[in-house]
Amino acid sequence: MSALEFEIHATDGDARTGLVRLPRGEIRTPAFMPVGTAATVKAMMPESVRATGADVILGNTYHLMLRPGAERIDRLGGLHRFMDWSRPILTDSGGFQVMSLSALRKMSEEGVVFRSHIDGSEHRLTPERSIEIQRLLGSDIQMVLDECVALPASDAVVEKALALSTRWAKRSKAAFGDQAGQGRALFGIVQGGTNPVLRRRSAAELIEIGFDGYAIGGLAVGEGHEAMIATLAETTPALPRQRPRYLMGVGKPRDLVEAVARGVDMFDCVLPTRSGRNGQAFVRTGTLNLKNARHADDPSPLDPACGCPACTRFSRAYLHHLIRSGEILGAMLLTWHNLQYYQDLMEGLRGAVAGGTFAAFRAAFHAATGGEGEAPSG
Amino acid sequence: MSALEFEIHATDGDARTGLVRLPRGEIRTPAFMPVGTAATVKAMMPESVRATGADVILGNTYHLMLRPGAERIDRLGGLHRFMDWSRPILTDSGGFQVMSLSALRKMSEEGVVFRSHIDGSEHRLTPERSIEIQRLLGSDIQMVLDECVALPASDAVVEKALALSTRWAKRSKAAFGDQAGQGRALFGIVQGGTNPVLRRRSAAELIEIGFDGYAIGGLAVGEGHEAMIATLAETTPALPRQRPRYLMGVGKPRDLVEAVARGVDMFDCVLPTRSGRNGQAFVRTGTLNLKNARHADDPSPLDPACGCPACTRFSRAYLHHLIRSGEILGAMLLTWHNLQYYQDLMEGLRGAVAGGTFAAFRAAFHAATGGEGEAPSG
Repeated sequence: MSALEFEIHATDGDARTGLVRLPRGEIRTPAFMPVGTAATVKAMMPESVRATGADVILGNTYHLMLRPGAERIDRLGGLHRFMDWSRPILTDSGGFQVMSLSALRKMSEEGVVFRSHIDGSEHRLTPERSIEIQRLLGSDIQMVLDECVALPASDAVVEKALALSTRWAKRSKAAFGDQAGQGRALFGIVQGGTNPVLRRRSAAELIEIGFDGYAIGGLAVGEGHEAMIATLAETTPALPRQRPRYLMGVGKPRDLVEAVARGVDMFDCVLPTRSGRNGQAFVRTGTLNLKNARHADDPSPLDPACGCPACTRFSRAYLHHLIRSGEILGAMLLTWHNLQYYQDLMEGLRGAVAGGTFAAFRAAFHAATGGEGEAPSG
Repeated sequence: MSALEFEIHATDGDARTGLVRLPRGEIRTPAFMPVGTAATVKAMMPESVRATGADVILGNTYHLMLRPGAERIDRLGGLHRFMDWSRPILTDSGGFQVMSLSALRKMSEEGVVFRSHIDGSEHRLTPERSIEIQRLLGSDIQMVLDECVALPASDAVVEKALALSTRWAKRSKAAFGDQAGQGRALFGIVQGGTNPVLRRRSAAELIEIGFDGYAIGGLAVGEGHEAMIATLAETTPALPRQRPRYLMGVGKPRDLVEAVARGVDMFDCVLPTRSGRNGQAFVRTGTLNLKNARHADDPSPLDPACGCPACTRFSRAYLHHLIRSGEILGAMLLTWHNLQYYQDLMEGLRGAVAGGTFAAFRAAFHAATGGEGEAPSG
C-alpha cells in the first residue's frame, strides 16, 4: 500500500509523462523540483516558486537538521507550515551533503559521524535518524540514506558502497514504518557508479525491498555528461515501469532533456537558483552572463519567449546593472527567470511526450541551444 | 506655474494632511518615500513597494550618476521605465552623498569634484550638472544642490554653507528651466544647522527664489532627536503654508510622528530597508532584533496588527531562522514588513489629522512604543 500513486499518461520512446498523486498535491511529470535548501528556495517567495509552475520542492535534511533543527521544525508545525509551502516536499537523506560539506566524517556500518560546517558541532546520521528527521520535517517523499561515491572510483569501492547502501536502504524502510498511512512515500536510491552490472544489481536489491519510487543517485559527481547518460540508459530499464524515477542533483537543461529521453520522471538541481544569484541566465538560445559589459546598454528583454517578471518588465541593461551593483533584486529576478525557464522546459517536455513529438522537441532544443556556450546578444 | 499641485485637506494643530498631485500620480501626505538608491528599493519588487502603500519613491543622484550613469538611463527610456516604477520619483541632488560616501572632495563656488567610492574615478557635480542628471533620469521632483554640514558645527561654518547653498539654489532654479511644462517640480532645501535665525534666513532666501516645495535639509546629521525637533519647530512656520514640506533623510518612527506634529508633509529614510536587511523589525510595540535567540522557537507572528506577508504567513521563528542563515528571503520579508510598518504609520497619521484626533494618536503611539528599546517578546 503506497500513499503515492503514479499514472503514466503517455509515452514516446522511453520518455514518459504522467502524474504523481500525493495527499498534498499532484506532481506533473517529468518534473523539476526547485531546491529549498534551508527551508527557502533562495531569493524566492513561495508563491513565486509556485507561479513558475513548480508542483514540488526539495528540502535538504543535512541543512535543516543543523539549522534550525528537525525537532524545532516539528514543534513549529512541520516544514510546510514553517516555510508556507502547502504542496509536496521531497527531502533528501542528508547523506550526500554530509559527504560534500561536513568535516571529520567517520563512516561505519551504523552510520556517519560528522562535524557541522556551520559551527563544528558533532552530529550523527544513521538510516534511522535520517528517516526520523524527514518524518519530523513532515516530508511527503523521503529518501533512504545511502553512501554516494565520488567518481571516478574503482569497482571495488563502488561495490562496497552499493552493498552498504542496500543494507541502509533496508534499515530506512524499516524505520519509515507505516508512514504511508500519513500520506508519505519513501524512495530507494540506485547506486553503482558507471558500471551497468552494479547499477542493475543495486536496482534489483532495492526492488526486492520495495519502494514507492526509485532514485538514481551517485551521478553528476564528476563522471561527465556522456557517462551519465550512458549509465542512465543502462539503469532505467532495470527499474519498475509503474514507479516514478528520480535522477538526483541533475542538472543542466540538456541533461534533463536527455534523461527524459531515457525514462526519468523527476529532477532536482541547484543550478537555476545558484546560477541566478551569480548573474547567469538560462535562455532559449543557451546561457547569458548578465555581468558581461555587452549587456549594459541593451534595452531588449532577457528572453523574449519567457513570461517571467524579469523578462516582461525589465531590460537586459537593468538586470546587468542590478547584478553589477550586487543588488538583491538582481538575484531575485534571475532566480525567478531561471526557475521559470526550467519549468517551461519541463512543460515543453511533457507536451512533446503527450503529443508524440518528443524527437522533434529534442532536436529543436539542441539546435537552439547549440552546446554550452554563451548565446549571441539579442 | 507649477507642475505640482498641493491640496491641504485637513489640519490638526500644525499637522496637515493632503494630496500632492503630479502628472505621474498623487502623493497622499504626510508621505513616506522608500529609498530606491540604485534604481531599486533594495530586496523589493516594485509592485511590492506599491502594495505597501508607497505613492512615491526616492532615487539617489550620486549612486545613479556613477552606476549605471544618467545618460545611459536616459537612453534606456528614463528611470521610471528602467526600474518599472510608473509613479512619481523624487531624486536628491547628490550633494549629501558626495559628502558622506566619496573620497577626495574639492569644494568650490562652482561645485564639488570627487572620486567615486566604487572605482575611484573622478567626477564633478555642480548645481547645473545635478539638475541635468535629474532631468536625464526623468525625476518628477528634483532637488537643488546644497552644501550639507555635519553637526555640531560653528555658526560661521553653517552660515557659509547656507550662503553657498542659496547661490547654488538660484543656479539650480535657472538650470531647471521650463521643466514644469514636462510635469516636473523643483524643491529648495533649507539649511542653517540648529540655529533658528539661520534657518529663517535660508527659508526667506529660498522663498524669494521660489520653489514648488521646500525641503528641510541638514538634519539627522548628528544633532539628536530633541535638537532636530526644536529646529523643525522654528523652521516650518517660516515656510509657505501652501507648499509641501519635506524633511530629508528622516527618520525613526517617533521622528516622523513629531515632525508631522510640526507641519512636515514628506519624508524619506533608509532605516526601514536597511534595518530589514540587518534583521531589525519595526513593530507596534517598538523594535525587534530577529537575530536574537529568543525568537528561535516563537510561533507567533512578527506583528499581529500588520497585514504584510512576513506577518500573515510566517512565524518569528522562521524569520529568525532566515536572518541567522543569511537567507535573501529574510531580507526580502523584513524589508517588506518595515516598509509596510512605515506606510501604515503614515496612514494612521493621515487619518488622525483628518479626523481631528492627532493628539490622541500621538499619545497612543508613544505609549505603545515607549522609547527606543526592544519590545517584549510576543
